[in-house]
Amino acid sequence: MRSTRAFRPSAVLKTDVVGEPLPDHAFSLPERQAVYRAIHERRDMRHFSGGSVADDQLQRLLSAAHHAPSVGFMQPWRFIRIRSRPVRESVHALVEQERLLTAQALGEREDEFMRLKVQGVLDAAEVLVVALPPGREAHVFGRRTLPEMDLASAACAIQNLWLAARAEGLGMGWVSIFCPLKLGRLLDMPEGSKPIAVLCLGPVHAFYDQPMLQAENWARRAALADLLFEDGWGRPAGMPAPASASAS
Amino acid sequence: MRSTRAFRPSAVLKTDVVGEPLPDHAFSLPERQAVYRAIHERRDMRHFSGGSVADDQLQRLLSAAHHAPSVGFMQPWRFIRIRSRPVRESVHALVEQERLLTAQALGEREDEFMRLKVQGVLDAAEVLVVALPPGREAHVFGRRTLPEMDLASAACAIQNLWLAARAEGLGMGWVSIFCPLKLGRLLDMPEGSKPIAVLCLGPVHAFYDQPMLQAENWARRAALADLLFEDGWGRPAGMPAPASASAS
Repeated sequence: MRSTRAFRPSAVLKTDVVGEPLPDHAFSLPERQAVYRAIHERRDMRHFSGGSVADDQLQRLLSAAHHAPSVGFMQPWRFIRIRSRPVRESVHALVEQERLLTAQALGEREDEFMRLKVQGVLDAAEVLVVALPPGREAHVFGRRTLPEMDLASAACAIQNLWLAARAEGLGMGWVSIFCPLKLGRLLDMPEGSKPIAVLCLGPVHAFYDQPMLQAENWARRAALADLLFEDGWGRPAGMPAPASASAS
Repeated sequence: MRSTRAFRPSAVLKTDVVGEPLPDHAFSLPERQAVYRAIHERRDMRHFSGGSVADDQLQRLLSAAHHAPSVGFMQPWRFIRIRSRPVRESVHALVEQERLLTAQALGEREDEFMRLKVQGVLDAAEVLVVALPPGREAHVFGRRTLPEMDLASAACAIQNLWLAARAEGLGMGWVSIFCPLKLGRLLDMPEGSKPIAVLCLGPVHAFYDQPMLQAENWARRAALADLLFEDGWGRPAGMPAPASASAS
């Protein structure tokens, strides 16, 4: 477990120091710093310290999720809170089953992957399954050419929940290592619905100071400048790269 | 244009008043309020007031996006900033073309939909196209059974950008009304890449006090309690519904 490296808002919000005028409707400087702090200190957590999440706290988090944007305002998110220990253990068993299959599919990186455990499904204070509801084909607005925008909306909801959890001092991990058909059957999901996330949520001993997969040398954060083009793919953008773009 | 209804953090963060102990690592009360404020006051904007976004401000927003979670830390997001006016007009023309096709597909709701313009693509200070990169099939971690998790990660990045923009006082709209093949061709995207968003970003006269599609009576926000189950689909959760769950 690593200690938390403090987020330095001054590294992000430099303009306020030099007094550049802000647009109307901007939050105050401390408010903006808080939003950036949540964004930069959020981590995909795999280690939890047990404990519990108060009901009203969980309601705030779920309400934050529910206030995400959605394509055509279709709100394509459903949350199944796993309270039964046997059901939770069955969810964990499905994750463990897929973990082995993924490791095999990874081939030469199998050993490396196998060290990344999914114990969080058993240890976290709360487990929430997020699913897309049935009947989504009735929603055409913004989805005629991109039907997968329902998933995009649900992901925005999960990101809201994640950031709110970080602000509340709770860790969260998004586990997508499961067979959606099997998990759907386990939780009596109707035909046409689809589980997209097993969220592990709860108190943690410490937040990682960098993404766990980077600490484990699985991958490194790319330089932002390499991901940014101008007017067409591969054409470098003219903006200077910020000093902190790949810092954490 | 509607006036902005103030967000009341007291309606969200009730527990602090009664002094319930917070977990370690929790942000301060004003910081938590700021994070919830961004989440609850963010809107999918369609009306912009021109102006500009400073380069360092745009860098902060893009860096916020780049610090989103991603499946297997694959960072499957690329940003194309549209600076050329003719390119922007071509993007708008593609959106307008698909808007007409969507309206026809909507049948009886066609007239209603046609009132919802996509003028923001022309008016916003900035237009950013977000795309998934080619070569994603090499990333198996967390995607063997759910390959669409790349899109989910990119959506989290867009949500980060959205919340940071709101804190900075900038509006953003996610337009998904376009043909991805045509937009890909327009922007020289390589085979295997896919555009998922045309983001309109910039100063606005005012933020909507409720989602625009709700104000336009297109749809209403569901009650959170109806979206929350326990241990299986359709089994009502035992938690009391919060007073503010469907308030804004």
